Amino acid sequence: MSVHHAPLALHPDRLLPADPGVLAIARRLYGAVRDLPIISPHGHVDPRMLLDNVPFSDPAALFVTPDHYVTRLLHASGVPLDVLGVGRGPLSEDSAREAWRQLCSHWDVFRGTPVRYWLESELAEIFDVAVRPSAHSADAIYDHLAERLVHDAYHPRALFDRFRISVLATTDDPCDDLSAHTGLAADPAWSGRVIPTFRPDRYLEVVRPGWAGAVARLGDVADVDTGTYPGWVTAMELRRRYFIEHGATSADHSHEDVRTDPLDSGEADRIHRAALAGTATRAESVALRRHMLLEMARMSTEDGLVMTLHPGVRRGHHRPTLEAYGSDTGHDIPLRGDFTDPLRPLLERFGTHPNLHLVLFTVDETVFSRELAPLSGFYPSVYVGAPWWFLDAPDAIRRYRSAISETTGFSRTSGFIDDTRAFCSIPARHDMSRRLDSGYLAQLVAEYRLDEDEALETITDLVNGRPREVFKL
Amino acid sequence: MSVHHAPLALHPDRLLPADPGVLAIARRLYGAVRDLPIISPHGHVDPRMLLDNVPFSDPAALFVTPDHYVTRLLHASGVPLDVLGVGRGPLSEDSAREAWRQLCSHWDVFRGTPVRYWLESELAEIFDVAVRPSAHSADAIYDHLAERLVHDAYHPRALFDRFRISVLATTDDPCDDLSAHTGLAADPAWSGRVIPTFRPDRYLEVVRPGWAGAVARLGDVADVDTGTYPGWVTAMELRRRYFIEHGATSADHSHEDVRTDPLDSGEADRIHRAALAGTATRAESVALRRHMLLEMARMSTEDGLVMTLHPGVRRGHHRPTLEAYGSDTGHDIPLRGDFTDPLRPLLERFGTHPNLHLVLFTVDETVFSRELAPLSGFYPSVYVGAPWWFLDAPDAIRRYRSAISETTGFSRTSGFIDDTRAFCSIPARHDMSRRLDSGYLAQLVAEYRLDEDEALETITDLVNGRPREVFKL
Amino acid sequence: MSVHHAPLALHPDRLLPADPGVLAIARRLYGAVRDLPIISPHGHVDPRMLLDNVPFSDPAALFVTPDHYVTRLLHASGVPLDVLGVGRGPLSEDSAREAWRQLCSHWDVFRGTPVRYWLESELAEIFDVAVRPSAHSADAIYDHLAERLVHDAYHPRALFDRFRISVLATTDDPCDDLSAHTGLAADPAWSGRVIPTFRPDRYLEVVRPGWAGAVARLGDVADVDTGTYPGWVTAMELRRRYFIEHGATSADHSHEDVRTDPLDSGEADRIHRAALAGTATRAESVALRRHMLLEMARMSTEDGLVMTLHPGVRRGHHRPTLEAYGSDTGHDIPLRGDFTDPLRPLLERFGTHPNLHLVLFTVDETVFSRELAPLSGFYPSVYVGAPWWFLDAPDAIRRYRSAISETTGFSRTSGFIDDTRAFCSIPARHDMSRRLDSGYLAQLVAEYRLDEDEALETITDLVNGRPREVFKL
Repeated sequence: MSVHHAPLALHPDRLLPADPGVLAIARRLYGAVRDLPIISPHGHVDPRMLLDNVPFSDPAALFVTPDHYVTRLLHASGVPLDVLGVGRGPLSEDSAREAWRQLCSHWDVFRGTPVRYWLESELAEIFDVAVRPSAHSADAIYDHLAERLVHDAYHPRALFDRFRISVLATTDDPCDDLSAHTGLAADPAWSGRVIPTFRPDRYLEVVRPGWAGAVARLGDVADVDTGTYPGWVTAMELRRRYFIEHGATSADHSHEDVRTDPLDSGEADRIHRAALAGTATRAESVALRRHMLLEMARMSTEDGLVMTLHPGVRRGHHRPTLEAYGSDTGHDIPLRGDFTDPLRPLLERFGTHPNLHLVLFTVDETVFSRELAPLSGFYPSVYVGAPWWFLDAPDAIRRYRSAISETTGFSRTSGFIDDTRAFCSIPARHDMSRRLDSGYLAQLVAEYRLDEDEALETITDLVNGRPREVFKL
Repeated sequence: MSVHHAPLALHPDRLLPADPGVLAIARRLYGAVRDLPIISPHGHVDPRMLLDNVPFSDPAALFVTPDHYVTRLLHASGVPLDVLGVGRGPLSEDSAREAWRQLCSHWDVFRGTPVRYWLESELAEIFDVAVRPSAHSADAIYDHLAERLVHDAYHPRALFDRFRISVLATTDDPCDDLSAHTGLAADPAWSGRVIPTFRPDRYLEVVRPGWAGAVARLGDVADVDTGTYPGWVTAMELRRRYFIEHGATSADHSHEDVRTDPLDSGEADRIHRAALAGTATRAESVALRRHMLLEMARMSTEDGLVMTLHPGVRRGHHRPTLEAYGSDTGHDIPLRGDFTDPLRPLLERFGTHPNLHLVLFTVDETVFSRELAPLSGFYPSVYVGAPWWFLDAPDAIRRYRSAISETTGFSRTSGFIDDTRAFCSIPARHDMSRRLDSGYLAQLVAEYRLDEDEALETITDLVNGRPREVFKL
Repeated sequence: MSVHHAPLALHPDRLLPADPGVLAIARRLYGAVRDLPIISPHGHVDPRMLLDNVPFSDPAALFVTPDHYVTRLLHASGVPLDVLGVGRGPLSEDSAREAWRQLCSHWDVFRGTPVRYWLESELAEIFDVAVRPSAHSADAIYDHLAERLVHDAYHPRALFDRFRISVLATTDDPCDDLSAHTGLAADPAWSGRVIPTFRPDRYLEVVRPGWAGAVARLGDVADVDTGTYPGWVTAMELRRRYFIEHGATSADHSHEDVRTDPLDSGEADRIHRAALAGTATRAESVALRRHMLLEMARMSTEDGLVMTLHPGVRRGHHRPTLEAYGSDTGHDIPLRGDFTDPLRPLLERFGTHPNLHLVLFTVDETVFSRELAPLSGFYPSVYVGAPWWFLDAPDAIRRYRSAISETTGFSRTSGFIDDTRAFCSIPARHDMSRRLDSGYLAQLVAEYRLDEDEALETITDLVNGRPREVFKL
């Protein structure tokens, strides 16, 4: 690539505190964890990609098209989603190159975002790209990347090893046969740990179209009649058991809210039947979902699956885009969150149960100091999840530590979660978290609020101890 | 003025980062934009002041009486509003001097506020005041200012030139004949650009006393029968057209909330007629206002006026003061805001329309990271407005950049808006914004999150590019 | 204590800004107030402890068992409350030592919390402990503390003098005869100022079990028939008068919300009678409480008691713990707060009354910039209370100053409130506040937003002037 492009280079002190005194401490803390293996207890990588070790087809498929963090800001900047390849299946080389050019020529709109930070890290560290993306450099970088992608060293399994991933959890439908996980486990050439996560949302979303069909399918897979509420419960329990047998340690839940008001069992069954018959009201359907969520907590106390909650997002905010391009296309928008009262029925029943680990995530920062830190600072089951989605970014992560640590310390937090479907961004995301936590701890040391030996122990615990303990890994 | 007063002096590095390394970067960024012309796309200066070039009558009229940012904190400190001249019309010299003395003798209550910062800047930079206001120095400063105000160089037009204002938008009633704007445009001695803004709130506030009269007046001015809803729509369209012909590029809206639920056209007309007849319920009246706001968005897609929304304020919180002194007297108090669900009907219809620019302002900081950044990071029509009103202050502006940039970057923000009726504060406000954005960007550079050439390009874009593009100037 | 324990030492610059330039300013500001006497206008120390000067029985009783800030995070870490002595009355030496060991062996879970900061300060400054608590050092520290506690110098009265407490307000039931306060005042060997605070919550909580009995007792004590609402009002007025005669200057209120919607007097009496008869609905009971709160404000305008409001906490979130261990056992969890609309009826009536001081506290940070700063920046009666409970911590205090100062400055804030039942933590808490406010002001000076002489005046006013004026001391 020619010399007239601006250079792309990663500074070793990036994201560490700017103040020289604090920086010196932060460097020591970060140095102690920089090279530790990655534990990824929650994410969206497709296990089949690792099973089949299929090469990434092109730079657009790797960095642009499937990543709604990337496509959303391009869309806001006037680039139609189809130009980015969204919803179009495999792209021709021309189309892939065009999608890539759009990213590069709009590189400036990502200034200040973690997306830019991750992409820079990936380009420079994994692919040795040394020039800054721009309209001018787009084609040269495309060619450079395309050339690398065909080599074995850039195939998924080689990258998995290079990334030093110790555990990778995927996210899976309860009806999934987990054959990809089975296949990996049975492959003598594979030694990585890839575990499934039980994600039953659609079977609880009684109001959504397709719920009845999903419940029927669940019954088929579990070989139980799910036409009654007790049958639904049994089927869920059986599928959770199946997941556990295949390595799962957690169940993930994402609904609009986290209310967990109980119904009596007769009422739950009555609504369940009415909903299947299409005669339940919307209020009844929502009530059933809330009761079902409480039921999932009960199951967790019995089978030990960690329960993670990711509430508070209006999914598919722009219906025309949803209809044209499907879900996860960049227009899921956060809502106000609430935990204190909605979770009370669950916590009164199971909040001190020794078997329950309940990890609470939010996209509403206001609950960090007001609700999540206080709840996790009393209930032995509750952990504050890492900053999620829109909050998985440097300043937001600093605000998170500042908002929660003073009430709940470090031990009641989940450790970092990358939550990504962008496989190559995993190392950059975990590294970002390590840098930022090192910086936060260094600030405590610099203000004489913590001794450095304690900060060192804490940063190591955040990278290794927390995720292993919280997610039972 | 005598030597025993504390000095008043502006430090060249004021508001820039304290850390020496970051400061060095910030100085370079700020230096590049310090002297750029001011673009003021939203504010409350009276255009007639510039047309007639009337001298400011006295220091109280210039700095105290009309500025609710100033009078509110004096009122909280025990000074009755009438002592400050509020609601009393032109003041005698004694009264004006007394109001000014109140400001000076309560100078300490403004510590830590941007009001103090702006006033200091105005006194020192425009009027060469070199002593700190106090009970002791009040009269001397009053005399100093009064002497300046009679000189041509301190009359509105001379200050307009001195301030290097490139564009100044005023805020105007739809029934205004815009004769002040016409007069300025026709004045061969005037070369400034002063444009009107369409502000139709009172014609949408069906619940407020006086709505029916306002709608009738609108009909008269537009020469349309506004007794029906279609007539109201036509009259609005005609007046918007009139504003556009007189230079307007935007329409401003401020209601309690931003819900935009549609009514069907028959229902809208039915409520419109009932409201005019005084028989509509409160709920119906609110529903009609929300429908009308949606209609204004539709008009913007057709006529291209930028739509700005300033919701979420309880106006006239203290009714006794409202009744005695009128509106805008310091007791408008913010409410919780919400955008995600309330704006969905509007955004589903028009969110991707190429003609719509929708700028969202808030006085509830919680929506910055939770709603405004995510919305503007997907919808090409949506921009995050600059920190508004209570949030137009150094720490709040820093929190704003921190809260939104990581999700939506810089390109989806509006650029600075001074929103002021205090003419002499315009340069200080824009300068404050430039200093703070330079500081934020310098921090990104110091943490190796942005290269300095990019930060330089960004600060220039924030000062010049953003407001021109977003407000179609 | 042996040399192989980690040392415990307090750095003189702890909590001051890390940046060397800002630190130099902060040191000067802090130095000016470090040794000023403590004014404690709101707290929960038992006055009988001072009257009887009873020695603290053991380290657990002093530092662990009664302090829900401490026990909650131990409980979250898996230590049952009874192991910590909660709800068990006086502990045997073995049990006390075991509770202390739990604290020491879980020392790491307090990293980053102010609890750790306070405990460190108390151990090092008051008791000369020089080793860091740990499982290893627990017994040695226990023995060291136990040995000190028997000495006169560590008895409550000696500590009160050593702490340089100028005024200490306790919190008392309206039916309390205040004999402890009377006893102290009458004791020729005692010269401290310990004043009661009127805390009538239970007499307003119409929905709570026991309300009717409390109202009857109130009638007995006041010698008034409280079977009618006017009787309740008269009894309250009489008890307030009694408290004022015994030195009280304020009345404290903590309910779920701060709504103050008025009832007409007939309706208030009707509900009052119905509630006593057990026939009021829940909605009626809540409406009566809100009306009663408005009535308390009216009384404050007449008798001059400062009114403090501490709303927005779900008390006793975990019912099983509440039933087993009682209230104040670590599971009170914050709720979203609102002030703008709920307080409007009160402020419309009394907001500009010269006799009213209304101090607003919150555990929901979002209201600082949105509601509390704007309200206190207009209403002469309203003050923003210091960061409370979960927010009484270094980073939260900085966020508080940042969120409110730009709208309401420093003069409209309450000064620091320790709000504690942990007697020995009082000096550390006030010192923490002084350090943090010095740091915030130093930052303003370093950014040329305030002159250092003004910052010096302000820090002194925050420590001495504010609490004296706001609480009428």
